[in-house]
Amino acid sequence: MASSAMIPTYTSSSKGEDMQVDIEKNSKSHVRSQWVLNPPEPPSSWRVVTDSVGKSISRFRKNFSSLRDESWTKVLFSALQKIFPILVWGRSYTATKFRKDLLAGLTIASLCIPQSIGYATLANLAPQYGLYTSVVPPLIYAVMGTSQEIAIGPVAVVSLLLSSMVEKLSDPIFNPIAYTKLVLLATLFAGIFQTAFGLFRLGFLVDFLSHAAIVGFVGGAAIVIGLQQLKGLLGVSHFTTKTDIISVTKAVWQAIHNPWNPRNFILGCSFLVFILSTRFLGKKKKKLFWLASISPLLSVVLSTLMVFVTRADKNGVKIVKHVKGGLNPSSIHMLDFNNPYVGEVAKIGLIIAVVALTESVAVGRSFASMKGYQLNGNKEMLSIGFTNIIGSFTSCYVATGSFSRTAVNYAAGCETLVSNIVMGMTVLIALQFMTKLLYYTPTAILASVILSALPGLIDVNEAFRIWKVDKFDFLACLAAFFGVLFASVEIGLLVAVAVSFSKIIVISIRPGTETLGKLPGTDLFYDVNQYPMAVKIPGLLIIRVKSALLCFANATFVRERIMKWVSDEEEESVDDKGNSITQIQLVILDMSNLVNIDTSGIAALEELHKSLSTHKKQLAIANPRWQVIHKLKVSNFVNKINGRVFLTVEEAVSSKIQC
Amino acid sequence: MASSAMIPTYTSSSKGEDMQVDIEKNSKSHVRSQWVLNPPEPPSSWRVVTDSVGKSISRFRKNFSSLRDESWTKVLFSALQKIFPILVWGRSYTATKFRKDLLAGLTIASLCIPQSIGYATLANLAPQYGLYTSVVPPLIYAVMGTSQEIAIGPVAVVSLLLSSMVEKLSDPIFNPIAYTKLVLLATLFAGIFQTAFGLFRLGFLVDFLSHAAIVGFVGGAAIVIGLQQLKGLLGVSHFTTKTDIISVTKAVWQAIHNPWNPRNFILGCSFLVFILSTRFLGKKKKKLFWLASISPLLSVVLSTLMVFVTRADKNGVKIVKHVKGGLNPSSIHMLDFNNPYVGEVAKIGLIIAVVALTESVAVGRSFASMKGYQLNGNKEMLSIGFTNIIGSFTSCYVATGSFSRTAVNYAAGCETLVSNIVMGMTVLIALQFMTKLLYYTPTAILASVILSALPGLIDVNEAFRIWKVDKFDFLACLAAFFGVLFASVEIGLLVAVAVSFSKIIVISIRPGTETLGKLPGTDLFYDVNQYPMAVKIPGLLIIRVKSALLCFANATFVRERIMKWVSDEEEESVDDKGNSITQIQLVILDMSNLVNIDTSGIAALEELHKSLSTHKKQLAIANPRWQVIHKLKVSNFVNKINGRVFLTVEEAVSSKIQC
Repeated sequence: MASSAMIPTYTSSSKGEDMQVDIEKNSKSHVRSQWVLNPPEPPSSWRVVTDSVGKSISRFRKNFSSLRDESWTKVLFSALQKIFPILVWGRSYTATKFRKDLLAGLTIASLCIPQSIGYATLANLAPQYGLYTSVVPPLIYAVMGTSQEIAIGPVAVVSLLLSSMVEKLSDPIFNPIAYTKLVLLATLFAGIFQTAFGLFRLGFLVDFLSHAAIVGFVGGAAIVIGLQQLKGLLGVSHFTTKTDIISVTKAVWQAIHNPWNPRNFILGCSFLVFILSTRFLGKKKKKLFWLASISPLLSVVLSTLMVFVTRADKNGVKIVKHVKGGLNPSSIHMLDFNNPYVGEVAKIGLIIAVVALTESVAVGRSFASMKGYQLNGNKEMLSIGFTNIIGSFTSCYVATGSFSRTAVNYAAGCETLVSNIVMGMTVLIALQFMTKLLYYTPTAILASVILSALPGLIDVNEAFRIWKVDKFDFLACLAAFFGVLFASVEIGLLVAVAVSFSKIIVISIRPGTETLGKLPGTDLFYDVNQYPMAVKIPGLLIIRVKSALLCFANATFVRERIMKWVSDEEEESVDDKGNSITQIQLVILDMSNLVNIDTSGIAALEELHKSLSTHKKQLAIANPRWQVIHKLKVSNFVNKINGRVFLTVEEAVSSKIQC
Repeated sequence: MASSAMIPTYTSSSKGEDMQVDIEKNSKSHVRSQWVLNPPEPPSSWRVVTDSVGKSISRFRKNFSSLRDESWTKVLFSALQKIFPILVWGRSYTATKFRKDLLAGLTIASLCIPQSIGYATLANLAPQYGLYTSVVPPLIYAVMGTSQEIAIGPVAVVSLLLSSMVEKLSDPIFNPIAYTKLVLLATLFAGIFQTAFGLFRLGFLVDFLSHAAIVGFVGGAAIVIGLQQLKGLLGVSHFTTKTDIISVTKAVWQAIHNPWNPRNFILGCSFLVFILSTRFLGKKKKKLFWLASISPLLSVVLSTLMVFVTRADKNGVKIVKHVKGGLNPSSIHMLDFNNPYVGEVAKIGLIIAVVALTESVAVGRSFASMKGYQLNGNKEMLSIGFTNIIGSFTSCYVATGSFSRTAVNYAAGCETLVSNIVMGMTVLIALQFMTKLLYYTPTAILASVILSALPGLIDVNEAFRIWKVDKFDFLACLAAFFGVLFASVEIGLLVAVAVSFSKIIVISIRPGTETLGKLPGTDLFYDVNQYPMAVKIPGLLIIRVKSALLCFANATFVRERIMKWVSDEEEESVDDKGNSITQIQLVILDMSNLVNIDTSGIAALEELHKSLSTHKKQLAIANPRWQVIHKLKVSNFVNKINGRVFLTVEEAVSSKIQC
């Protein structure tokens, strides 16, 4: 509509008064076409690889040669600094910083002790394993990590995932030792995989889970974890080992229809209300933040005292009972590689490695960007991997960066990873001297500590934002959420990855095409749908493919689409007698999008050229990119279209108007 | 280097004399930014789907309403014409055309009879099944197909694939009836799948095999087929059922170390030389083309006569013996759905369906484009699918378009699909009256007929062209070739698909980035590597990502790459004292490539903006596409970068220079 009104202006101005300009333009245009047609040879795939290796070597050499003049001790120290960043930031460490770190460390320790015991229970391990995992990993990470805020230790999602996968191999109730051995072996494998990812720079593996899928997955996992806590909250002994919502609802239904003790439930719920209300207060008034942070520990202490004084455990209140105290024992003898399940455990280790890294890197990155520094993904993987390898030798299960404790650490004003050291030492002291005090701690309180941490994992606002911005992303989010909820944690994970990738594939094999028009007052040709003021040139069809790749998977589709554009365009402009008014004479393919093309793509272009030729139409190409023009030249396509290759769409258009 | 020399020119001209122009430009630039920022709402994914459905319905209605005034018989006839294209082209059929089709049909029939028997043997079926498959399918396809040149019937690759997969379920030697039943069931499933692909417009499934992968796969399959023919050529009874080159070499080794009869080998080889030399003559002199076409049949006739006269079968020359004559019998009673392998057979049917369609569509397309008409992929699938369904009821196995016979059909001057009807009727007559004459045909001759068709399948020139144009494509070609040769036909196929798709994934998750410079004498900013004359603007970094999608899989990588560009750029321009001369103040992201972005992509841009801000650098965006600018607006990113969104890179650059 807009186009037909504007055409006369365009044609008159370019054919009439500006003749001189046109001729000048034409010779310029010829020079520019030569620029397009004779670019330097693009680097071959082989060159790209060798160049990249060469660069790494020369960088290493440069670093090395700059060190050659230095003494050997300096060289060694420099290498150590790369491995242990604490040697860098530790040198400028001050007493002021320590005061802040001490406070932050104590705060996260108070949150960490009840959480660790709860997560160990979630992972079907004895409570002390949770505490062990809060001692060694933070200490190791503190000397190796590059983040300054991450709080390392056991986390909910990994604990759940670990238990749901390992309990298929060994029953945690009938044979807890065999189960624990498998968990430690899985931890070792996870550590080895994480270290390998870091060494081989496979950081992108963490990116396989899209942001949307993570939001859905974590939300679903939080609900599953919450449902698992009903076991503790109801104080029942028999519960399902499955994690999907249907099995758990059935188990809860059976539990409340058998005789059960409401004391556990009342105790747990009242402290849950206490913790949640202190958190609410802490959010309202920044000064009361401390109360929110220590309320979980406070709840543990108060409820333990209550049970101890009233001896409520004799009236059916379930208690933790014996927690083994003392330092982390060595667990090297427990790593049994002759296990028949070793292959399965390695697979579990791989999945856990990716999930744990995803959580840790996501946490680390978001806080790093708040403080405006970059997190080195590969170094992070190395640090977490090494942390877990050492952890598996010292009775720890998989540790990673925790969402909730890192947020508290940041809010409590931590300066460096020293807060992790403070936390580790505090838990160590608690393990050494205070485990006896945990004897009377009611299990319902541990459930409420875990439950209180869950709302932060269910990010409804973010899900809504995803819905607003990208419907397909929201689908990935929903798929992961329901996958975890109704099937299992692994299937949720699988669905999340599959949906995320199917989007890339779908966009690649079914790219859209758009027609371009001239923006008034410019030489620019843009999408006529996006810019309604853009004017189509009669007799010409300018098409751009919305894909970076013209390849086997989309070449035929694109070719057929373009032929359809041509016939649609001619059909639209028919007069009353059904005769086409404007015959399309030239089809210009704007290739500015196309980064690469393969042999199927070239074959499709050749077929397109043939079909257009039989209909007496010409094909021209505008702005082909480096790899594309190189391949079109090598395959002789440029000669087939008589060298109609132009730097811009505008030049392709004016070449036609002059003919 | 080039950049530093050119800068003064640029800055002086834009800051000095052209001040007035700049101001005017600036106000224009503002208007244009508004064009970018306020595009019409892009259609939502939901709208795209409903629109596409709506269009189909309205097109159907339009067709229908234009028919409403017509009589019912006309409507019916019009519908029938859609299903049976023969009703369209048949109306303009002439005696001249028939003369040509008759000649072409007889030519392909003479080639078809020995080939069909050979391919049936390759598929481990009795010889008559090959002949059956050359009767019914060509007749059905002739009334339904849209191609004019395709010769339908059994083909080598499908026969090999079918036997290699079905013989895992049932042994063709010990229980030939059960084996044949499974083959017929697989044919039915293949037909159903092909019809379904056509109905649901899943034509793109055929595109899952890239051109390069097909070249490798077909080449590998040809060699495997050739090796299988050694059984017939050596006249041995026991041979391996495996298809990989190592098993076959072993079997051949064992065969020639046992007593064997060289008569078979001499007979086969001499006629192979005869066929190949007639073909060579046919290529040299167009007049001798007929000799090349009938030489296979001539060989069969001559060798059969020779054996009959000399009774060489008593001296160890293997002969075909009994071939069951008569019309295609019904095979509906042989389609047993209660078979325990029915699931497996369905899977085989699916694979065969895709491979057979790939071959047929590839053949049909290449000849259609020679004659300058379009092949309707979905209609083709429907026709071939229906052909195979009917085929499975009439004792035919999977039929599809044959490479070799289609080429002969075209060369013999066929005009329409009537040549297929002629071929079918000829084979029918042969089945009815001449099967007894095939009794003394030596099996070695069938092997040489198949062997003579193979060189056309091994396309070394095309493989070399692929190597020249695209190294990665060549890798896919090689992988498919060696997969077929050293593993199995299915694995070769799987490898081909996997390698083809991994390229799309790799390019999506690891996109390159490029810096742009100004082309002298223009306002255009192009890749400085492709256009060495392009000049970088000091203090600015203009970056374009070589991907159509900024998504979870590449967002982090791209963000880190851009930050590295920034630091590299500043490092490069240091003076002797190590101070950076030009501080980069503005990073312009040319988004003209980006077709879409997801929430992870937006998050990465936000992080990039934050990191740049902490280093006192600004981020601007040039030429965002429809979906991208919409999402950037919805997610509030445009406000975060203070609306620094421009129509072109040039405008983004001049906005900076004016500051």
